[in-house]
Amino acid sequence: MDKEAFAISCFNNEFIGDDGAVVGNFVYAKDLFVEGTHFLKHWLSLEQIGYKSMTVNISDIIVMNALPKYALLGLGIPKNTSSDDIKSISNGINIACKEYGVKIIGGDTIASDKIFISLTLIGELKNKPIFRKNLQTNDFLAFTGSLGDSLKGLRALLNKGSISKKSRFVKPMLKDKFFYKASKFINSSMDISDGLGLDLEKLCLASRKGVKFIKKLNTLQIKSGEEYEILFSFSAKNLKKIRQISKQTRTKITIFAKATKGRYKSNARKHHF
Amino acid sequence: MDKEAFAISCFNNEFIGDDGAVVGNFVYAKDLFVEGTHFLKHWLSLEQIGYKSMTVNISDIIVMNALPKYALLGLGIPKNTSSDDIKSISNGINIACKEYGVKIIGGDTIASDKIFISLTLIGELKNKPIFRKNLQTNDFLAFTGSLGDSLKGLRALLNKGSISKKSRFVKPMLKDKFFYKASKFINSSMDISDGLGLDLEKLCLASRKGVKFIKKLNTLQIKSGEEYEILFSFSAKNLKKIRQISKQTRTKITIFAKATKGRYKSNARKHHF
Repeated sequence: MDKEAFAISCFNNEFIGDDGAVVGNFVYAKDLFVEGTHFLKHWLSLEQIGYKSMTVNISDIIVMNALPKYALLGLGIPKNTSSDDIKSISNGINIACKEYGVKIIGGDTIASDKIFISLTLIGELKNKPIFRKNLQTNDFLAFTGSLGDSLKGLRALLNKGSISKKSRFVKPMLKDKFFYKASKFINSSMDISDGLGLDLEKLCLASRKGVKFIKKLNTLQIKSGEEYEILFSFSAKNLKKIRQISKQTRTKITIFAKATKGRYKSNARKHHF
Repeated sequence: MDKEAFAISCFNNEFIGDDGAVVGNFVYAKDLFVEGTHFLKHWLSLEQIGYKSMTVNISDIIVMNALPKYALLGLGIPKNTSSDDIKSISNGINIACKEYGVKIIGGDTIASDKIFISLTLIGELKNKPIFRKNLQTNDFLAFTGSLGDSLKGLRALLNKGSISKKSRFVKPMLKDKFFYKASKFINSSMDISDGLGLDLEKLCLASRKGVKFIKKLNTLQIKSGEEYEILFSFSAKNLKKIRQISKQTRTKITIFAKATKGRYKSNARKHHF
């Protein structure tokens, strides 16, 4: 049983099933970031943990085409956490807040065995929201940036190696500038958190579409999760505009497939419990 | 060091410091409800855990004078949790949602050693928000319902006894009907989660006021936390109206003090870590 899918099914309604939930002019997203599940304590500094927890949530707001504005923070920390440690976590959170113009407006702090950060982000729509369910037949499918570095970093850590603080596993690099500018030409989007293969499957499922690859991707590109690059689609007629904006904003994009009628199932393994 | 207060101080701004954060016409509140901190697993059924986690968050929205509308749910559950168990937790949450007209619009589910529920509630303001910081000198201070039952229940559980499923520790009874109706006559309010003594101290601190007791309360009434009754204040000129609404809505209220200039410090012990 996929417990996450089952839990979602217990609350099914029209709001659920995208990176964020749209209510009027606002978009809401919530993610948990937990020691032992998303990171081990010696993998990341407390500041990096704070920073990453914020950016992965901000990522959800961006790909819905909303501006991140406010956040509520649920913080679980062990009883022996020092004030310096709390300061480090909050520094990381505040750095991300400053970078993306977010204000922490509330939250809760409790003692827990393991560090956990539960963030709810509130975004404001600039324009129309962009959903997963709007992938159109014959749309080009593309992703921003490069994929693979996050899984490479994770594998190094799992092999007791170390990684650069610039690794995408440590520091997601959100492609907001490209995305906001390109948004009026984009039909569907989501961020790449579980890996391109699995996320593409979700996008296709939401839109009831299939995929024809036009570019060969390697296993690392397909399987690497926690990339926080953007998977998006656009109509062929906007190809030139998309390429222009990619150039203007110096954001690499890779067009790798076309959407077809039908279905798509990735053979990448699910990480969910 | 009070770690919660320290964590809050790391993010200080004008939104923080009340039961909920007001942004435009919306009120946001976030609470964590965690096994080992707020409950032991054998104290409450999974359905009761789900129900209580929702109602304590809804309580925060009500005392700000907003209508609870939407919620985002972060759910941490052990790997061996069965689908029946997930169903039980979600049943409890859904019962509370139905009772108060709330829709779950998103969230996240992960594996964790202990059950934790992180809820963000979104409320819509009917009228003016009611803050802690608006307690006026000479206001009457009152609370809804009866205080003490929750601590009595907790003590029974700590002594390996059992409690009725009607105990306030198990099932908070929110006083929304009275509060919404009385709200235009109310100056300041908050819910009683840490105990009347400590919560009164917070109310007074937010408003820079003191307290003169006009009614003797017992230790149980002063110390019992997780009551989710409402502590509120109103001007003497509205006393008759408040009594009327209390009668109309069959909601017991106890007027126990008057606000004064000065400060108030409770000698109740803090539970925070």
